[in-house]
Amino acid sequence: MHQLIERMFLATFPHPALAARHDGAVLEVPGARLAFTTDSYVVQPRFFPGGDIGSLAVYGTVNDLAMCGARPLYLSLGLILEEGLPMEELWRVVQSIGQAAVRSGVEVVTGDTKVVERGKGDGIFINTAGVGSLRDGLDVNPSRIRPGDVLILSGDIGRHGAAVMAARGDVEFPDPIESDCAPLSGAILDLIGRGVVPHCLRDLTRGGLATSLVELARSSSTTVEVDEDSVLVDAPVRDACELFGLDPLYVANEGRFIAVFDPADADSALEVLRQRAETPRATVIGHVRRNAPENPDEADQEGIVIMRTRYGTERVIDMMSGEQLPRIC
Amino acid sequence: MHQLIERMFLATFPHPALAARHDGAVLEVPGARLAFTTDSYVVQPRFFPGGDIGSLAVYGTVNDLAMCGARPLYLSLGLILEEGLPMEELWRVVQSIGQAAVRSGVEVVTGDTKVVERGKGDGIFINTAGVGSLRDGLDVNPSRIRPGDVLILSGDIGRHGAAVMAARGDVEFPDPIESDCAPLSGAILDLIGRGVVPHCLRDLTRGGLATSLVELARSSSTTVEVDEDSVLVDAPVRDACELFGLDPLYVANEGRFIAVFDPADADSALEVLRQRAETPRATVIGHVRRNAPENPDEADQEGIVIMRTRYGTERVIDMMSGEQLPRIC
Repeated sequence: MHQLIERMFLATFPHPALAARHDGAVLEVPGARLAFTTDSYVVQPRFFPGGDIGSLAVYGTVNDLAMCGARPLYLSLGLILEEGLPMEELWRVVQSIGQAAVRSGVEVVTGDTKVVERGKGDGIFINTAGVGSLRDGLDVNPSRIRPGDVLILSGDIGRHGAAVMAARGDVEFPDPIESDCAPLSGAILDLIGRGVVPHCLRDLTRGGLATSLVELARSSSTTVEVDEDSVLVDAPVRDACELFGLDPLYVANEGRFIAVFDPADADSALEVLRQRAETPRATVIGHVRRNAPENPDEADQEGIVIMRTRYGTERVIDMMSGEQLPRIC
Repeated sequence: MHQLIERMFLATFPHPALAARHDGAVLEVPGARLAFTTDSYVVQPRFFPGGDIGSLAVYGTVNDLAMCGARPLYLSLGLILEEGLPMEELWRVVQSIGQAAVRSGVEVVTGDTKVVERGKGDGIFINTAGVGSLRDGLDVNPSRIRPGDVLILSGDIGRHGAAVMAARGDVEFPDPIESDCAPLSGAILDLIGRGVVPHCLRDLTRGGLATSLVELARSSSTTVEVDEDSVLVDAPVRDACELFGLDPLYVANEGRFIAVFDPADADSALEVLRQRAETPRATVIGHVRRNAPENPDEADQEGIVIMRTRYGTERVIDMMSGEQLPRIC
């Protein structure tokens, strides 16, 4: 099994650091500013329309690097396998990791596999950590959010969560919903390369758009106003969410992000994003303003998110308490 | 739970990158040569004499960086928790991670927590990935091993495996065996700082001394000769191994390494190591020579390990087939 796994990895991930079979990878990174991130992936089921736990483990970590404004370069890969996992399933996942790495322009350079007894795991758990390089002087960070900034949402929401929920259940959907699972670094690097530098970026994974907006508002101590009508949820996703009793605002995405721009940059940002295959439906969904301490809702120094509904009313969007969908990523 | 875990982490790991609650950590690394490594930890039981899954997850990854000759700088921390894990146990592990990080001179800068249902995990699984910086021109690598090189073993072997096995079983030991679990980067950086640069380093984790020696011989296509008598196994460890039916040569260590030196450097290396608290019993255990193709055993181009027994005979040491002790790290 040890040899089989080793051959599997060496065949899929060509970086010489892996073939050297050393304890770690030695890497040359242009410049000395790095982004470093990690995520574990426990999604259930492991295969779903539009992706699987392998591609998710690559794109999820690549996207976290992209959200720092970094160019993703290297991934580590830690697998925890449950005894009895069919080798062909592992092979399928490893192949998917390899393809996703190529698509994202990253290399898997170091890895580890542990096996636990049957009933002490659940097929495959994957951890990826990622290292990316950051341009000198680039600072993409919630603390840079300013009143007046414009919020751009990169596409429609709710696909990943709806796709995984649909893949779990016994309900047959006429048109299977595909996860939006995709690498976002190309779009972000394109923006930065053209001088359209976002103040902040956030992908919309666990907890969905709502949670990301609340996090941004809180960490910048601002009020974020969003127009409900401008937030795209496609009809099949909306239907599936209704069926599952989910609010699409809180459903996880794996290929969508919020970018916060200076108002002067918003048009250029939209133009860049709409020309790209990943983000043709990028759209402005709201803006940032100062907290209004005279308003009891906004006295909260942590920041607040207000949604203008399609009926002209306003509601305060809160973070989800607990996890709406366990093991969605 | 989300808030509780967040508070737990922020209280234990002070690096500002974590407190920024961004998707990844932005780091300044002196120089642009990096080492990058990852390991998952599934050790059972989670607490054992001399350590626990938390300290193991720090030292294991720190040591993999040290084995590249790197100065360990940053860790990522990915936890997969099983529903129902007592929070006080998680807290104990997180505290242990914090203390081990301080002791190793590394900072936890990014992290992630996933929760799986009861029966789909086993309490706590930990993944750490580590980033370290490498001095310009430093090349510590199996390909640098040369015939004539001397092998130094940093201390006695078998402690970690024996400690974990003892902690698992119902057998009461008069003197509990403590794991050798410890950070090795101090000793390695001391050697390198004094100009006593090893050709290659390898820690003796899964598969023990025997497996590490076979890996070194194979990746350098040499013959490694070791004197059995020079390999220290303390009496309580030897007794425990006998009781469990284990060969100490194959038992995992978490604070021991093999260093391969040019013969001219061997005495200085011993002098440096013996002055350090982690490696007072460092000793020469053998040397490297060319494969002798006229010997059918050594015709194998992959390299070979020969042990001279205390009875004057020779035996070929092979890699273990399969895992001797599952979930030992």
